[in-house]
Amino acid sequence: MVMTMSSAPVHGENVPLDGVPAGLIDDTLAAAKTASRALGQATTAVKDAALAAIADALVANAPRIIEANAADLSRGRENGLSDGLIDRLRLDETRVAALASAVRDVIALPDPVGTVVRGSTLPNGVQLSQVRVPFGVVGAIYEARPNVTVDIAALALKSGNAAVLRGGSAARSSNEVLVSVIQQALVAVGLPEAAVQTIDEHGRAGATALMRARGYVDVLIPRGSADLIQTVVRESTVPVIETGAGVVHIVLDASADEQMAVDIVHNAKVQRPSVCNAVETVLVHRDAAERLVPSVVQALRASGVLVRGDERARAVVADLEVASDDDFATEHMALELSIGIVDDLDAALAHIRRFSTQHTESIITRDMANAERFLAEVDSAVVMVNASTRFSDGGEFGFGAEVGISTQKMHARGPMGLPELTSTKWIVRGSGQVRG
Amino acid sequence: MVMTMSSAPVHGENVPLDGVPAGLIDDTLAAAKTASRALGQATTAVKDAALAAIADALVANAPRIIEANAADLSRGRENGLSDGLIDRLRLDETRVAALASAVRDVIALPDPVGTVVRGSTLPNGVQLSQVRVPFGVVGAIYEARPNVTVDIAALALKSGNAAVLRGGSAARSSNEVLVSVIQQALVAVGLPEAAVQTIDEHGRAGATALMRARGYVDVLIPRGSADLIQTVVRESTVPVIETGAGVVHIVLDASADEQMAVDIVHNAKVQRPSVCNAVETVLVHRDAAERLVPSVVQALRASGVLVRGDERARAVVADLEVASDDDFATEHMALELSIGIVDDLDAALAHIRRFSTQHTESIITRDMANAERFLAEVDSAVVMVNASTRFSDGGEFGFGAEVGISTQKMHARGPMGLPELTSTKWIVRGSGQVRG
Repeated sequence: MVMTMSSAPVHGENVPLDGVPAGLIDDTLAAAKTASRALGQATTAVKDAALAAIADALVANAPRIIEANAADLSRGRENGLSDGLIDRLRLDETRVAALASAVRDVIALPDPVGTVVRGSTLPNGVQLSQVRVPFGVVGAIYEARPNVTVDIAALALKSGNAAVLRGGSAARSSNEVLVSVIQQALVAVGLPEAAVQTIDEHGRAGATALMRARGYVDVLIPRGSADLIQTVVRESTVPVIETGAGVVHIVLDASADEQMAVDIVHNAKVQRPSVCNAVETVLVHRDAAERLVPSVVQALRASGVLVRGDERARAVVADLEVASDDDFATEHMALELSIGIVDDLDAALAHIRRFSTQHTESIITRDMANAERFLAEVDSAVVMVNASTRFSDGGEFGFGAEVGISTQKMHARGPMGLPELTSTKWIVRGSGQVRG
Repeated sequence: MVMTMSSAPVHGENVPLDGVPAGLIDDTLAAAKTASRALGQATTAVKDAALAAIADALVANAPRIIEANAADLSRGRENGLSDGLIDRLRLDETRVAALASAVRDVIALPDPVGTVVRGSTLPNGVQLSQVRVPFGVVGAIYEARPNVTVDIAALALKSGNAAVLRGGSAARSSNEVLVSVIQQALVAVGLPEAAVQTIDEHGRAGATALMRARGYVDVLIPRGSADLIQTVVRESTVPVIETGAGVVHIVLDASADEQMAVDIVHNAKVQRPSVCNAVETVLVHRDAAERLVPSVVQALRASGVLVRGDERARAVVADLEVASDDDFATEHMALELSIGIVDDLDAALAHIRRFSTQHTESIITRDMANAERFLAEVDSAVVMVNASTRFSDGGEFGFGAEVGISTQKMHARGPMGLPELTSTKWIVRGSGQVRG
């Protein structure tokens, strides 16, 4: 262990990992750091060959993967996991094929590494260029969805990063086999095994160690519930890319077209209720409440949505459930939606400031002044006019891969593509210039 | 206080400020957040008018500023501050004029807010654009240099951010007057007073509160010593832009031109030794040691540089002081430099991995393969071939203002301009589109 630590950078802020057994994951992290150097120099062709090998290996090892997953499923049932969680955990022949297919999709994405962001030649002849480089080591902490193991590994690999993965304990057997299959494929194309590693075996202490691994881990990505993400954001001393919960709002302005309002609210709630860009709250201008609320409620209810309302909404449609402040603050991720009536755009903006997770908000309006004001003043990653919030998505934006949707303001904001998994470096080429 | 807190966003992660007296700076932070909304919507013309008013007010209030500074200086002398610190703290007529001039320079910089980073129209007609927006509230923690108070206030203002400043207690009287002068100028052009605030009066507890102010402060910038910066990086739960210490290396390859090596090392150390892009360590290929080390040492000594060497360097120039690992790890910021002899480029890269702060490194070589390998493999913010490390600077890069040099990998890396003080937001304009 001393050997491992002594090879670490003196300035890498090797803060002792508080509350973590000494040496718990030091070897893993040091190996990841070493592997990241090889990955950072790997050509696109080699990385794509690794991705192809991983996809093939997943298919070839499907029986082994499904067997390990069956052990997780049976343990999960014993531990009383809900049907929903069991379903998220489950891998079968079709889902393993889908994992492999998702990896092959990453091959088609452009390699961000080496892309020149900007450049110039100074008057003294010095040439500057800012190029994309991998972060180095990407950590991920997520819950019991084994597909995330493969997703993050593939995206990290294509962007030249080593990955250290901490999945949910409920998926431990599945993740162990998935990572071992990935590692075999990496080695087969000449990349280091340690380019993708799991620390699931260390349980909670491993996650804590990962969050404190400054100098080893360059960026940490939490994926999963709002609770998980907030815990990582609060406890991590490693920089975090916060991919976030969405308490998403749609504002129906006084001038909103009725059919457009009904269609967009319905689409934003019903088309896929379990995702972060689904709408949770509809705020209706009081002048449009009588005109819009009944038809919006009717369309939602026809698709099985439980609609709640504040007092003023319930004055329009009497049999709405009661919407509390807790409802307005909750990402239900289900066929549930709350309606509030507001006096004007100011009141809508104030409600959004109070309850929004700054993910995505949309306004339905014919009033372009109000539209521009909404776009300018709402401080969210994605702000929309006359469009469904379901468009707030990397795939819809044309990024081709689901790295996540950042709800923080630093580094990346909104839907993230592969370039958001890179840093940059300035390259300066001179011919002996000194500063005068 | 309850009123203040209840206006905060429910999802703004209002973590209690551990170890901070409740309510210590809540009013300040809430006021900053409110002010940031006005600033975010302010036009370039208004912001530039504010900057001009601030510059004028600084000059007009020079006697008051210098009087307050005299109180700091006298307290500093009583407390035994070193001559160097006293000099950094001192404001006189000339320096106040320089502060005002620096503020006027910021007027000339392009306003990053509203710049379109990228955009596209989707097949369904939805229009996407990613535009620069202010972070919101920028916090700064720095030491006893009152010029930083004015610098950060001006840069934050031009980029549309509110600023909460925590300067060194030794400059408290100066900062109090400077901020009051700035606030009067802000109010005179119709911007909120709370756009620039100081929390110096709360001492250390105020700094701690600022570091824990998630949901109020969007980004925190530490400026000053390596110790200060590392403390903020470690203790802050607010995202930090780490502007960093530079243990900067120059590698003299076997093929390095002697005159170029001497000129660049001399320039990189002597032209301004007290800054982060000055070289601290020169690593010389063993095949060039006899040829290069004597003339490099001679040129450095002629300018009063204390030159240290490892054992092998001292075998070439016997009377070098001994360079320890501590020397190789230290940013001296003085006329001191350490020389090490390495077997090859691999050994130079290993030394850099161990001791570099990942700020700036340069190689002097005629071997283009080695140059490219150095540029690719050295994991620093700025990597150079055949140029002085002193070019690693926002002014030299043409950014026009000294926001700092980031040594972190997230968000911004290397010399930072005004755009690095902004985030982005996606604007989506539709005409009723829903997702199929």
